[in-house]
Amino acid sequence: MTPRHDPALKSFASDNYAGAHPDILRAVAEANGGHQTAYGDDVYTEALQGVFQRHFGRQAHAWPVFNGTAANVISLRSMTAHWEAVICADSAHIHTDEGGAPEVTGGIKLLTVPTPDGKLTPELIDREAWGFGDVHRAQPRVVSISNSTERGTVYTPDEVAAICAHAHGLGLLVHLDGSRLTNAAAALDVPMRALTTDAGVDVLSFGGTKIGMLYGEAVVVLNPSAAKGIDYLRKSFMQLSSKMRFVSAQFEALLSGDLWLRNARQANAMGRRLAAAVRDIPGVEVSRPVQANAVFATLPRDVVERLQKRFRFYTFDEARGEVRWMCSFDTTEADVDAFAAAIAEELA
Amino acid sequence: MTPRHDPALKSFASDNYAGAHPDILRAVAEANGGHQTAYGDDVYTEALQGVFQRHFGRQAHAWPVFNGTAANVISLRSMTAHWEAVICADSAHIHTDEGGAPEVTGGIKLLTVPTPDGKLTPELIDREAWGFGDVHRAQPRVVSISNSTERGTVYTPDEVAAICAHAHGLGLLVHLDGSRLTNAAAALDVPMRALTTDAGVDVLSFGGTKIGMLYGEAVVVLNPSAAKGIDYLRKSFMQLSSKMRFVSAQFEALLSGDLWLRNARQANAMGRRLAAAVRDIPGVEVSRPVQANAVFATLPRDVVERLQKRFRFYTFDEARGEVRWMCSFDTTEADVDAFAAAIAEELA
Amino acid sequence: MTPRHDPALKSFASDNYAGAHPDILRAVAEANGGHQTAYGDDVYTEALQGVFQRHFGRQAHAWPVFNGTAANVISLRSMTAHWEAVICADSAHIHTDEGGAPEVTGGIKLLTVPTPDGKLTPELIDREAWGFGDVHRAQPRVVSISNSTERGTVYTPDEVAAICAHAHGLGLLVHLDGSRLTNAAAALDVPMRALTTDAGVDVLSFGGTKIGMLYGEAVVVLNPSAAKGIDYLRKSFMQLSSKMRFVSAQFEALLSGDLWLRNARQANAMGRRLAAAVRDIPGVEVSRPVQANAVFATLPRDVVERLQKRFRFYTFDEARGEVRWMCSFDTTEADVDAFAAAIAEELA
Amino acid sequence: MTPRHDPALKSFASDNYAGAHPDILRAVAEANGGHQTAYGDDVYTEALQGVFQRHFGRQAHAWPVFNGTAANVISLRSMTAHWEAVICADSAHIHTDEGGAPEVTGGIKLLTVPTPDGKLTPELIDREAWGFGDVHRAQPRVVSISNSTERGTVYTPDEVAAICAHAHGLGLLVHLDGSRLTNAAAALDVPMRALTTDAGVDVLSFGGTKIGMLYGEAVVVLNPSAAKGIDYLRKSFMQLSSKMRFVSAQFEALLSGDLWLRNARQANAMGRRLAAAVRDIPGVEVSRPVQANAVFATLPRDVVERLQKRFRFYTFDEARGEVRWMCSFDTTEADVDAFAAAIAEELA
Repeated sequence: MTPRHDPALKSFASDNYAGAHPDILRAVAEANGGHQTAYGDDVYTEALQGVFQRHFGRQAHAWPVFNGTAANVISLRSMTAHWEAVICADSAHIHTDEGGAPEVTGGIKLLTVPTPDGKLTPELIDREAWGFGDVHRAQPRVVSISNSTERGTVYTPDEVAAICAHAHGLGLLVHLDGSRLTNAAAALDVPMRALTTDAGVDVLSFGGTKIGMLYGEAVVVLNPSAAKGIDYLRKSFMQLSSKMRFVSAQFEALLSGDLWLRNARQANAMGRRLAAAVRDIPGVEVSRPVQANAVFATLPRDVVERLQKRFRFYTFDEARGEVRWMCSFDTTEADVDAFAAAIAEELA
Repeated sequence: MTPRHDPALKSFASDNYAGAHPDILRAVAEANGGHQTAYGDDVYTEALQGVFQRHFGRQAHAWPVFNGTAANVISLRSMTAHWEAVICADSAHIHTDEGGAPEVTGGIKLLTVPTPDGKLTPELIDREAWGFGDVHRAQPRVVSISNSTERGTVYTPDEVAAICAHAHGLGLLVHLDGSRLTNAAAALDVPMRALTTDAGVDVLSFGGTKIGMLYGEAVVVLNPSAAKGIDYLRKSFMQLSSKMRFVSAQFEALLSGDLWLRNARQANAMGRRLAAAVRDIPGVEVSRPVQANAVFATLPRDVVERLQKRFRFYTFDEARGEVRWMCSFDTTEADVDAFAAAIAEELA
Repeated sequence: MTPRHDPALKSFASDNYAGAHPDILRAVAEANGGHQTAYGDDVYTEALQGVFQRHFGRQAHAWPVFNGTAANVISLRSMTAHWEAVICADSAHIHTDEGGAPEVTGGIKLLTVPTPDGKLTPELIDREAWGFGDVHRAQPRVVSISNSTERGTVYTPDEVAAICAHAHGLGLLVHLDGSRLTNAAAALDVPMRALTTDAGVDVLSFGGTKIGMLYGEAVVVLNPSAAKGIDYLRKSFMQLSSKMRFVSAQFEALLSGDLWLRNARQANAMGRRLAAAVRDIPGVEVSRPVQANAVFATLPRDVVERLQKRFRFYTFDEARGEVRWMCSFDTTEADVDAFAAAIAEELA
Repeated sequence: MTPRHDPALKSFASDNYAGAHPDILRAVAEANGGHQTAYGDDVYTEALQGVFQRHFGRQAHAWPVFNGTAANVISLRSMTAHWEAVICADSAHIHTDEGGAPEVTGGIKLLTVPTPDGKLTPELIDREAWGFGDVHRAQPRVVSISNSTERGTVYTPDEVAAICAHAHGLGLLVHLDGSRLTNAAAALDVPMRALTTDAGVDVLSFGGTKIGMLYGEAVVVLNPSAAKGIDYLRKSFMQLSSKMRFVSAQFEALLSGDLWLRNARQANAMGRRLAAAVRDIPGVEVSRPVQANAVFATLPRDVVERLQKRFRFYTFDEARGEVRWMCSFDTTEADVDAFAAAIAEELA
């Protein structure tokens, strides 16, 4: 079989458009052969706990799942009783991009708050953190934040810590949607635990897919008293991989060395390079701070249309004429330069 | 990195203990590199429809998902209204081994029927196919069967056709849990469509993992009028893979040639070989017909205990002292012979 | 307005066909007028706790709800985590007559056991009480029994105690569907607490409607550590009555004196009278023990058809030609005698 | 038994604090006695369809349920597939006051829109009516409005018609939460069908409790093609009353003559009287238009505290010092005058 696609083609649509890093494929191949106990009782998954603990502390425990929506829903359900609700930004992936999975499948009510930049603050949390003990109000129990955010911004360790302190003071728990946690840590040049365990985050959805795995995310419990039943929830929510060794081997390849960091740095650097390259092109305006691997920009609609015939990317806000350009671990300087040149060309 | 495990070790515990066939890994590697549209709009997933249609007919449409529990729950939910129920054998995987996912996550009531051999019949279906129009009774809407069954037996095309005709006559639809459909077709030496489309099955959960994929199953709609909303259900049930090209490429490797058939024949042949090898060992009784890749047997408890220290396999029925030995696509004659020798040794 | 119906007409179809006892209507009228805090913070609901505690002990707490299905689902959900399951007889109302509410609305898997007479035993419970800690199996957590049962039989205090001891020994909780608990207690001439609190039952669905209320049942927690979140579950399961004073006033009228007992004794006595009256009519066979207010009998199909034109009652088992005759608190000796005479006539 | 409460005491907390109108109690008493088929096959429920059709047109069909939360959730679920969502004001009762029932029990995602006055408009609907066909977005399917609103405002027939036309043009259906529809119709002096059927509303939750019933609301389908499965949904959502004759008899008493209108006019008139009485008291500001039976006002916090010791009412917005005073069908001129006098006194 020859590939059906042209491996030279890149896009700026999403870090999900990229494939897997070669080291990831190699780890999968090495984990192959012979028999391993199914459903997670294999040596790769056993070893995985140590790998996650080196990043997130001794108390951390990771449950590999298939995808990010599932990591989020299982995390949130493990932290809540039947009637409890989750406060999040109205730009949160759990609210906007998961097909209603938290409500439809998890039965979890989301209490959303508008934000200027995708980031919650203690003050913004307070808009929905009320009504405790009132049966008429779905009971707030968890604050969920994303880092890096769906708006390309990054919470600092201090900002996360302030949110956690505030939430805990109200009797709330904190969940972090870390589908791009690696990008956030790389952007700030801090260890991942500075943005999670050390800041007080209780449960983390850790993202592997966007940063170079074939598939695979993990629910990582950082505060053991904050979550329960994940073994069972993972199964009943249809996320227990039978041949789990292959998920775990990918995570080990990503996290035991610095592959995660190299990949994240590359994606972030390409984001910065792209922003710098277009900033001076007349007719383009970089519309949001470029803090990780996403660049948001406005440019004329006809230009967008022409450009989209040459490169894949998404219009983010139709009304504002705003587009999103996302860089990946496999985006190269040449890819960025060619794209920037095309933008300049179309605007000339 | 060197592998953490010994690739020479085999077990008789489950076809999920096996890894992936080398051709599957090769297909994943070939699908890698460059960017492909995420969430299923890639060239591999596009090509997949033709692959499935060659097996299941022009009207077939496949939706790749991560695992078998999900394929079942999405299939069943796509066939039912909110209040409709599913008739199945009380040995069905959806009832016994999915952590309650159909009820807990799908909100689907199962109406279970005891069977002697894991196989439903029109008569057995009638035990639960009643009460139509009575709001007090969860409304039967789907009959779900497994082929090969959880008891190692196989439905013939005529048996499936009789069930479908009976079900359709009652206004019911038919779902087939085909996590081992390949084994059933290979055992009967019939094309898969003889057991599905041609027999009248409406929706199929097609199993890829147990027959040599890393991960991946598919909801395959054979009767387009029988199911709705699978695009949305797959997303809200958290089963939409972002890098779907890798699932689809595996399916193509499995199904475009005869890899599926070779793998299934090998597993089945090893099941027969094992049954033949132990049948004359005093103290072992093969307790069920060996029709696919599973061998059920009874033998003394202390022997089971000693054997399980040498080879992994499951006790199936503690009370009866019955064990299950499952063969895989990668089980070799040498594996079987060594195991049979060990059984003989322990019983000597 | 004159009544649309003939208040002289009675049936033997169900104790739900009866209206309300006059004392119940009087209590509703007395609770009317002026304003009372909605949603349960009224003086009638406050007083209700004492009323229930006199029957069920100091530790008991009652939550009025609208109907029996809801009392059951809220009880069961309050006793289980998201992934936990309930063991019940396959004749249980929660399995056969609630439109799938436990699964569809509650997301609760039922593990059903066939019984000869609608009654579970420790041995029967063991058929489904296994697999603890195995994520593939929905985790058994509650045993649910009905008293009196859907087959007209009654558990004795010793039988309930044996079930509770066995269940608790396995780490399971016990729920009692007491939609006809009053009938059971009256039949055995024991206080209701002998069949509940004293026998070890953890949570009770207490039935008011069938024994003479307009509407209203209650979740009664007998073991405070066995249930949680009922205040919230009642609201999110849509069972929080705004004008709750009217439910509570009915319960008080029923339970503060002996109205419940008089009503139950009358219904039971009429069941016995009916059984006695038909036992010697050739062609009728009383098919099950008559222990409360239900009489099951077999008689020729054409006779059933003719009788059903004169009196409303249900065919219970079409195949066996078995019918169910249910007596109510308002069934009189004259009603029974007229019915028995009609049966004799049709069989003559 | 003497009443436990003082029937002379009134409040301004909620129209749920009132009891039942005497005509309602009389209807219940008349429907009592003898046997009627349970679960809705009684003569009162049969007659009810004609009653509702006189108000809402020949095509209307009503399903009585116990309470308003249930009427809403059943309505919305009957209009949506598993993955479809509902657009509503962020002040909607379904979002703010139902303990998360739509999401937790119904599995329905709400897409909320801020409004100045509790009223949606075509423009406001458009903020969430997008993403059709995108599996990542919970699919908008229903627009739900309340009339009168939770802010005391009233939609005119033209406003409802504009919303319906806009929604239908987008392929959306319209649900009306009519827990106070009677108040809205009375306020505008139009028949209820002008605000519902004639304006294009598809499904209505009709409120009986707040306007003088003991309990009881109804799902009323105005467009038969807009909803399905309500018979089954009502049962599985635990809202099928066994002795339904008593709910239906109340509705008949309310709706067959003009009791609903007299009650609504009285409540509205008392709202206007209260607003007029306090408007000139220095220190009170009527903070929202008084269009039905609710009065919103701001006044000093210490005054609120002192007043709440004398009369029950709710603080609506703690931050703004805004209170809500709700009038009922049984609020009298003397009640209003005494309350207004107390307000003046406390502010003097």
